[in-house]
Amino acid sequence: MSDSNSTVAWATPDVLTTACADLQGQLRQAIDCKTKPLGALGRLEGLALQLGLIQQTRQPTLTQPQMVVFAGDHGLTAEGVSAFPQAVTAQMVLNMLGGGAAVNVFARQMSFALRVVDVGVAASFAPHPLLDSQKVAPGTRNSLFEPAMSPDQAQAALAAGARVVRALPGNVVAFGEMGIGNTASATLILAKLADLPLASATGRGTGLNDEQLAHKISVLRKVLARHAAAQSPLEILQAFGGFEIAAITGAMLVAAHERRLILVDGFIASAAALLAHAMAPNVLDYCVFSHTSAEHGHNALLGALGQEPLLQLGLRLGEGTGALLAYPLVQAACNMLCEMATFAQAGVSAKEAPL
Amino acid sequence: MSDSNSTVAWATPDVLTTACADLQGQLRQAIDCKTKPLGALGRLEGLALQLGLIQQTRQPTLTQPQMVVFAGDHGLTAEGVSAFPQAVTAQMVLNMLGGGAAVNVFARQMSFALRVVDVGVAASFAPHPLLDSQKVAPGTRNSLFEPAMSPDQAQAALAAGARVVRALPGNVVAFGEMGIGNTASATLILAKLADLPLASATGRGTGLNDEQLAHKISVLRKVLARHAAAQSPLEILQAFGGFEIAAITGAMLVAAHERRLILVDGFIASAAALLAHAMAPNVLDYCVFSHTSAEHGHNALLGALGQEPLLQLGLRLGEGTGALLAYPLVQAACNMLCEMATFAQAGVSAKEAPL
Repeated sequence: MSDSNSTVAWATPDVLTTACADLQGQLRQAIDCKTKPLGALGRLEGLALQLGLIQQTRQPTLTQPQMVVFAGDHGLTAEGVSAFPQAVTAQMVLNMLGGGAAVNVFARQMSFALRVVDVGVAASFAPHPLLDSQKVAPGTRNSLFEPAMSPDQAQAALAAGARVVRALPGNVVAFGEMGIGNTASATLILAKLADLPLASATGRGTGLNDEQLAHKISVLRKVLARHAAAQSPLEILQAFGGFEIAAITGAMLVAAHERRLILVDGFIASAAALLAHAMAPNVLDYCVFSHTSAEHGHNALLGALGQEPLLQLGLRLGEGTGALLAYPLVQAACNMLCEMATFAQAGVSAKEAPL
Repeated sequence: MSDSNSTVAWATPDVLTTACADLQGQLRQAIDCKTKPLGALGRLEGLALQLGLIQQTRQPTLTQPQMVVFAGDHGLTAEGVSAFPQAVTAQMVLNMLGGGAAVNVFARQMSFALRVVDVGVAASFAPHPLLDSQKVAPGTRNSLFEPAMSPDQAQAALAAGARVVRALPGNVVAFGEMGIGNTASATLILAKLADLPLASATGRGTGLNDEQLAHKISVLRKVLARHAAAQSPLEILQAFGGFEIAAITGAMLVAAHERRLILVDGFIASAAALLAHAMAPNVLDYCVFSHTSAEHGHNALLGALGQEPLLQLGLRLGEGTGALLAYPLVQAACNMLCEMATFAQAGVSAKEAPL
């Protein structure tokens, strides 16, 4: 990806059309020959097929999985759209650097390397081995009054995400986020890109009550009206922010371009996927949607992308936690394809002819 | 558990009433203090609570998880109720001993020890390190004409499951099954114990077509009518079989009695849980229902037990595969409780007061 605002450089290879013509059939055949009734491994079979197509092989491998958490602050928090104060973004970054956040716990469990990228937190951090400073600005501007980012800032945040991914080893990436107020940005992006009413797109974030939710919707309505002219994915991103959403978008575009498997977390990461998809539709071929968040609006977002995630656990934490929790299913799909015996290998009888 | 037909010896400690009075509140408090919005880890929070209550501690651990696959054949297969021939039971046992079945692949991935217990396969096996021979008989009788098991056989199969579990290390058990025709037994148990019409309880098993499914339902209707007098859980088990379902039932009862966490797989394992629950209701306190099977009838069975499983992946393979796939979520819940920082530890600000 260049740092220009061209989106052409982000075009990603279409998994299906660039696959050798027979690969899809070969993979389907390989899965169907395994010692199990046809289709009996449900969603894992589709995952195995996707993995094989991404890696263009009947024997995919998963190597050095990486979790990158992008953190940024949001000017719109001044309008009272989040249950937690803005300072929590920086505090949670420190919690992640200390290893105590949920994303740390699950990354350790799933053997993911974890790094935190500051793309726009409204605080300064001392250097830390897990911290990558790519700060574009100390928080976005308040989108109630002006675009959250300048065009240059949006490009810089997209490029930061792209740069981080290019430097990563392995073929599996998951992107998390930390940013008090970022469900507001994700909601605005969803409402605008998918042309949804705010009432269907807006949720309680970290825990708004009914009155606070009504206030959030009324604020977002004004923000949406102010930026009615924003039309392209880039203009929408600039208008509503945030830096972490832009960085995830750039990271996804490059990850797909490099044929890595992308584990998509919850509402915020899915909003980035919606943007990335609007810029380069084939990016979805590389995405595994990990879970349906309890955040109101995620279902609508998934519907707009035609995706049905693997897990439905009522999660609404973000950070990348849902992506990590879904990873064992991806591993299981890969292992099924590579390790399970076929009927012929195991000497197991096939299904009987119908009566 | 004695080998008598008394069910009293299987009574399991009620997790809630035997917990020290404050433990539930302490666990809830420990979960709520973690650095995340209240309830943001969804189903994992309930799992963490359950684990703490089972082990009666705020710091649960998961040790030496065990997968036991019970295998048995079914006399009713003579009536054409399965898409695969009976010989596949023994062939799949050999596949499991060779390490090539899905349950092997996932057990390796999830670090479960695996053993296969022959409680009633209609074939003889050479000794093998992974095979435990507890054969009650070479297959059940044809329940269309007589009870699938004698009372002594049912007791022997229950006792076999119990014996196997008592000898296992660790505090996590999952039970799988292999038995061509066993969805028929599970369906009959469900229809009888939960008083459900056969049409809602009967599915395609390993892959019946519409005509074969109609035939299966008509056979099961006759079997149900023949054993209309069976009323107690034990009588129902004797009437419909199979040995592997009986063994899982005994295994679950003892596992709960020993306060082990039980991962319940799909339709067959859930039918065993339905029987175990009918014998000792508290057994459910120790169960984690892992997934909703695509086998028609599983949903109804889960409804009868008031359970909502963790995964919905369209699996219908059995063997214990779904239980293994759900295990990382149980580990994540345990890790969350034991490793995540609290707001106080991490110096993270609490939620702001409502507007």
